[in-house]
Amino acid sequence: MTIVTLLTDYGAADTYVGQLKGAILAVSPSATLVDLTHSVPAQNVRAGAFLLWTGVEVFPPGSIHLAVVDPGVGTARRAIAAKCARGDFFVGPDNGLLPAAINRLGGLTDAVELTRSKYWSPRVSPTFHGRDLFAPVAGYLARGASWRELGEGIAELQGPPSFPLPSETGDSLHGEILHVDSFGTLITNLRGEQLADEFALTIGGRRIVGRQNAVFESVSEGTLVGLVGSAGLVEIALRNGSAATKLRVTVGEPISAQPTRKHPPAV
Amino acid sequence: MTIVTLLTDYGAADTYVGQLKGAILAVSPSATLVDLTHSVPAQNVRAGAFLLWTGVEVFPPGSIHLAVVDPGVGTARRAIAAKCARGDFFVGPDNGLLPAAINRLGGLTDAVELTRSKYWSPRVSPTFHGRDLFAPVAGYLARGASWRELGEGIAELQGPPSFPLPSETGDSLHGEILHVDSFGTLITNLRGEQLADEFALTIGGRRIVGRQNAVFESVSEGTLVGLVGSAGLVEIALRNGSAATKLRVTVGEPISAQPTRKHPPAV
Amino acid sequence: MTIVTLLTDYGAADTYVGQLKGAILAVSPSATLVDLTHSVPAQNVRAGAFLLWTGVEVFPPGSIHLAVVDPGVGTARRAIAAKCARGDFFVGPDNGLLPAAINRLGGLTDAVELTRSKYWSPRVSPTFHGRDLFAPVAGYLARGASWRELGEGIAELQGPPSFPLPSETGDSLHGEILHVDSFGTLITNLRGEQLADEFALTIGGRRIVGRQNAVFESVSEGTLVGLVGSAGLVEIALRNGSAATKLRVTVGEPISAQPTRKHPPAV
Repeated sequence: MTIVTLLTDYGAADTYVGQLKGAILAVSPSATLVDLTHSVPAQNVRAGAFLLWTGVEVFPPGSIHLAVVDPGVGTARRAIAAKCARGDFFVGPDNGLLPAAINRLGGLTDAVELTRSKYWSPRVSPTFHGRDLFAPVAGYLARGASWRELGEGIAELQGPPSFPLPSETGDSLHGEILHVDSFGTLITNLRGEQLADEFALTIGGRRIVGRQNAVFESVSEGTLVGLVGSAGLVEIALRNGSAATKLRVTVGEPISAQPTRKHPPAV
Repeated sequence: MTIVTLLTDYGAADTYVGQLKGAILAVSPSATLVDLTHSVPAQNVRAGAFLLWTGVEVFPPGSIHLAVVDPGVGTARRAIAAKCARGDFFVGPDNGLLPAAINRLGGLTDAVELTRSKYWSPRVSPTFHGRDLFAPVAGYLARGASWRELGEGIAELQGPPSFPLPSETGDSLHGEILHVDSFGTLITNLRGEQLADEFALTIGGRRIVGRQNAVFESVSEGTLVGLVGSAGLVEIALRNGSAATKLRVTVGEPISAQPTRKHPPAV
Repeated sequence: MTIVTLLTDYGAADTYVGQLKGAILAVSPSATLVDLTHSVPAQNVRAGAFLLWTGVEVFPPGSIHLAVVDPGVGTARRAIAAKCARGDFFVGPDNGLLPAAINRLGGLTDAVELTRSKYWSPRVSPTFHGRDLFAPVAGYLARGASWRELGEGIAELQGPPSFPLPSETGDSLHGEILHVDSFGTLITNLRGEQLADEFALTIGGRRIVGRQNAVFESVSEGTLVGLVGSAGLVEIALRNGSAATKLRVTVGEPISAQPTRKHPPAV
């Protein structure tokens, strides 16, 4: 009962996700399918890479992660499968969607370009490789197909292996908002382990107090709080509300933090 | 193949629901996971309690219901598991989310505070007990873990065991709107069994005719109709449209009904 | 492990879909449930018929397709199960929702009106036949119940067996927009096989160039492109954007194409 996780930008309004699952089950009827999310903003590879990175770690090693955010479908971009150090497989386009998640699971150990059409659907739609190429390949991997049979080995993947890294000046860390979640919580690229137990965040001209173990109710109703979230990243939340709405900021907004762990806070 | 149902306010835009499922499957790979809904309005425990109450009865006895709407995550509120008379288990925060659903399945027979960290993830995020505490516990229950091993027994749960009850004056019943569903149908706290076969509803200054077995097409296009819905509660629907939009009312709006079953309608 | 696919207009905000699944699993615990979509516009049978048609083909023959878009629930419209030439079963209301999908899988070979209440829930809500009638029947079919036991044979189904067909004048094909997907891509009722390798589309006074194997990145950023989509139908897409927004058109908008396959394009 191999787990296959799915992440796409297909949304819920069409049957595209259902078709993806049908194509996997047609090859591997006993696969356990789990949606990571299908609400990646349309064709936004960077947002997809972040969401994939947040979702994969909790699954048992050896899971197969099928991810398709693929504006270049049908062009020269490569279709790939990749294996990472923890033993998980990734299947998707070679456009920068996969590397951050692969690194989270120990880094790339092997990759192939998917060139063997015997593992695809008999007819491949030029605009739906998710259903006709990636899903069947994920199905064959779930059935235990030999990894090396799927195509030609490749040395490295396209695209950035990680998110924009914060920079450091003095005792300050400078980063940005990577994602706004459905609660309106702002998720930054600052890692909690880079900061002291207590820290201050500056965003959009406002100063917000933060603490490693803060929770939503650490502050009073309607107050902003900095905390280290479930992905290990610094977040800004609003008790009983949306921090994004209150601060009127979105993805890409600069944020800075002081002090870093190296400089314990002056009390 | 134990069923684990899931209800949260996590939404579909992030990977939070996927992570919850990964954490269950990591413990119990053969669990059958079923989403009740993940669209509970953010941190709205009362709305979550209603939706959970609507969803659990149809599942086979012995199912495990994991429910997380948890604004107080990481504070002193207790994490609990509860067993009800029908044999189902509930796992979630002790904040009023669970009692109505437990009562629907025969009432509470046993409860524990989840205090044994050996049934949790090795690292528990202060803001994501869903993934790191509740999900693994649900997974161990699905695997058949001994109920008593999970923590210390507790006598009773926090929060109201049911929804606001209607009041009665003369032959009238006075209640309120508990929920507006995705069709715009208004669901009230009046129980069908409290009313006669035919009844009249008054809401927002309007009078609407109702009948126990009415359906959407019992009335002409664009007309409001009172009926007893699939949860046994009185509802107001609009044929081919949204009653909520037409009446411009929402959750909490007062409604009254006449006559009650005790006073058969004068023809 | 029989596959049961689900398509409804229930949305994600309530527990209706969860209840449907509970009712299936209560009868057939090992069924594999796959959502096609639950975002059919409320009570829009025509939209549901199109989406069902798009979703079923990729599943393995012998799957069970449960589809409920049912404004006439509780009235004289028949509840049916149908078998098609490929071996798949369909379960749903006899209101025009099923025939196009049945035809896609080889056409109708047998149909019954669901009249045997022993295959239903003990109590049937007049407004939720999905949970109380269709879902249990799908569960019994998944368990291998004898097809003929479910009810009385019927000769034919209600409603149109297919979508509005395009008409032809000279070397032009005249059709309409059937669906707008979540990317804003316009899906027409013109079949790719009716057109030459290169063709021109006229919609809303604009002319758009198309090609059988075009993909989104066949054109430059912000440009409209005609292509043959994953369902074999002609589509209009916008590279990195929504064609529906750019053209300000929606379902029902007329479209024409030249030249047809019979008249190869003058270069």
